[in-house]
Amino acid sequence: MSRTRIHNLSISLDGFAAGEGQSEETPMGHAGQRLHRWMFATDFGTRMMGGDGGSTGVDDAVAHRHELGIGSEIMGANKFGPPGWQDDPDWTGWWGDNPPFHTPVFVLTHRPRAPIEMAGGTVFHFLDVPPAEALVVARDAAGGLDVRIGGGATTAGYFIAAGLVDHLHLVQVPIVLGRGVRLWDGLEGMESGYDVEVVSTPSGVTHLTFTRRAE
Amino acid sequence: MSRTRIHNLSISLDGFAAGEGQSEETPMGHAGQRLHRWMFATDFGTRMMGGDGGSTGVDDAVAHRHELGIGSEIMGANKFGPPGWQDDPDWTGWWGDNPPFHTPVFVLTHRPRAPIEMAGGTVFHFLDVPPAEALVVARDAAGGLDVRIGGGATTAGYFIAAGLVDHLHLVQVPIVLGRGVRLWDGLEGMESGYDVEVVSTPSGVTHLTFTRRAE
Ligand SMILES: NC(=O)c1ccc[n+]([C@@H]2O[C@H](COP(=O)([O-])OP(=O)(O)OC[C@H]3O[C@@H](n4cnc5c(N)ncnc54)[C@H](OP(=O)(O)O)[C@@H]3O)[C@@H](O)[C@H]2O)c1
Ligand SMILES: NC(=O)c1ccc[n+]([C@@H]2O[C@H](COP(=O)([O-])OP(=O)(O)OC[C@H]3O[C@@H](n4cnc5c(N)ncnc54)[C@H](OP(=O)(O)O)[C@@H]3O)[C@@H](O)[C@H]2O)c1
Repeated sequence: MSRTRIHNLSISLDGFAAGEGQSEETPMGHAGQRLHRWMFATDFGTRMMGGDGGSTGVDDAVAHRHELGIGSEIMGANKFGPPGWQDDPDWTGWWGDNPPFHTPVFVLTHRPRAPIEMAGGTVFHFLDVPPAEALVVARDAAGGLDVRIGGGATTAGYFIAAGLVDHLHLVQVPIVLGRGVRLWDGLEGMESGYDVEVVSTPSGVTHLTFTRRAE
Repeated sequence: MSRTRIHNLSISLDGFAAGEGQSEETPMGHAGQRLHRWMFATDFGTRMMGGDGGSTGVDDAVAHRHELGIGSEIMGANKFGPPGWQDDPDWTGWWGDNPPFHTPVFVLTHRPRAPIEMAGGTVFHFLDVPPAEALVVARDAAGGLDVRIGGGATTAGYFIAAGLVDHLHLVQVPIVLGRGVRLWDGLEGMESGYDVEVVSTPSGVTHLTFTRRAE
């Protein structure tokens, strides 16, 4: 059974998944790299940046699940590019010629464009449809594997609120960002549909894993 | 050296320390008892309610520190009573004739009244002064012991923002309350002055302990 999963969504204590002031120079706004330092210290994160020598404990094991068994991704317009990317016909995402997805990726935007085929199996498709419809399309493209909701928090929140997420992995980082894009708004009581596991690790982060409860 | 401490301040994932709709019937608003269930399961919490048989693990050990070495408490008007208590000359707090404080307690309110002496050593004093001034008065009354900021989140936030808190213990409960009184507003970057320890326990809560860093 194909599931819908969110992984490694990193939030501050006050629930922000990105800072204020996203731009091409500052993709995470004033948060900088603070929300993902835990991940870049792991083997998974180090390899993603083309290096090696990262940690191989629980943070790494959990981070790694991001890429296991995923057949397609859905992401929001603000993850795909900085404000204004829709006005740049040459924008193909942050990730260079060979993006780390290697699957179809569905970018939700009110200004869709033609698909872009990248090296390594990533194809960006652009959709202007509600979450449930996007999920049907992405699941169809996933070839029986799971669909990942890649974020940001706005898009993740839409899918959680619509009851479409089966597995949600959040990483809470002990900083107070104060401003930016907050995950929790509109999600009152969302825990009731899930089994919740909470585990802190020596890096100082807390892994919150929500698994949809069998009905 | 007398310190200023906050203990057992329980917040939801989205940072609310009380729900919406505080009243005499619902002191915590729509949150009900959900924020403090972890504490009522401990020996400390059970004894507070006049029972026994609670858990004696890490949750209990940490909860118990609430009462160790405290010489006075400062609390906000909304912890002392439900909205409108200032209009009731007979209101003496939620806690009956023998409140669990057994020290001087300073209630911050814009409508102060004469002190109230209760059984068991608790005396309620009412102050309409800024946080730093209240702390001088409370410290003076603490006889060399520490001062506890008893909450709610509004008052705790004022003291944290003013840089007056030496030890902050938060307990994050894995529920999304959606509305109420939020702790984090106005506290951007507050972690920078503290060493932060994050520990989850089998009850599902996460203990966040902020200890002021030596300068
Ligand atoms: N903390 C983390 O782990 C993490 C993970 C991923 C990303 N991020 C960061 O988060 C930020 C982006 O997140 P975000 O929350 O600001 O935005 P986002 O979720 O990436 O994108 C939101 C935008 O997507 C479009 N959209 C969403 N659903 C749609 C639908 N059904 N139909 C049409 N368009 C739809 C809308 O854009 P338009 O109306 O403009 O088309 C909407 O404003 C970036 O800074 C990124 O680096 C952080
Ligand atoms: N989650 C927890 O662990 C926890 C702990 C304690 C309490 N609580 C709950 O939290 C709620 C109360 O918290 P709250 O954040 O709503 O309010 P609060 O912090 O108890 O009280 C805030 C009020 O105190 C007065 N005040 C604060 N500082 C003042 C100053 N310097 N000078 C004069 N007056 C001042 C003001 O009231 P006026 O202007 O009206 O005088 C202000 O509106 C209750 O539901 C309580 O049960 C929860």
